[in-house]
Amino acid sequence: MSGTEQLDPAIAARLKRDRDGLVAAVVRQHDTGEVLMLAWMDDEALRRTLSTGRATYWSRSRGQYWVKGETSGHHQYVTSVALDCDGDALLVSVEQVGPACHTGTRTCFTDELPVAVVGEVKA
Amino acid sequence: MSGTEQLDPAIAARLKRDRDGLVAAVVRQHDTGEVLMLAWMDDEALRRTLSTGRATYWSRSRGQYWVKGETSGHHQYVTSVALDCDGDALLVSVEQVGPACHTGTRTCFTDELPVAVVGEVKA
Repeated sequence: MSGTEQLDPAIAARLKRDRDGLVAAVVRQHDTGEVLMLAWMDDEALRRTLSTGRATYWSRSRGQYWVKGETSGHHQYVTSVALDCDGDALLVSVEQVGPACHTGTRTCFTDELPVAVVGEVKA
Repeated sequence: MSGTEQLDPAIAARLKRDRDGLVAAVVRQHDTGEVLMLAWMDDEALRRTLSTGRATYWSRSRGQYWVKGETSGHHQYVTSVALDCDGDALLVSVEQVGPACHTGTRTCFTDELPVAVVGEVKA
């Protein structure tokens, strides 16, 4: 090994990290578009994700890297990654094996909040 | 007016805010499921969103509330809002009028990053 591996500087220069050095990663099922979860990446998590094709995040609660599915078997095989216009969010498209959520549901977004006034949707 | 309006305490108790008091809001087009953008909400932005049906965010760069479309005309009429399992992210479904992105594109996620090894998608 020739030294430390780093995220492509051209990509790193486009990231707008928060105070903890993280960007948000929105994860969706690549073919249906279903939004599965939101996780966090630092430069190294993004480098690993892009170079291995396995979704890798930074766990804010555990303070460590986390390859999705490594312990649960609910792997995420990455098909594409897109950065947003201001560099603080990624859209990660994956083939999700099994449920994305640790609670056992397909998606983490299951807690519907009441919208008092539903916006006037123009057909 | 009877006093300060507040986010429903039962909802507020489920939010896991970052150090700036914010949660991430993933925004998608309600019918196609297309992921449009990522923005940020504090308790008050969420309260306004739920009570008015108009997507309202906290602008981290400008340090102020921001009703999407107020200046651009690219309104977001909210059809549903869901909280994720650990309370740090919202999925906001909207009817997006015009482009969601300030650059004029429909979605903010237009900058594709190279995935060196595309995950083995099992058909």
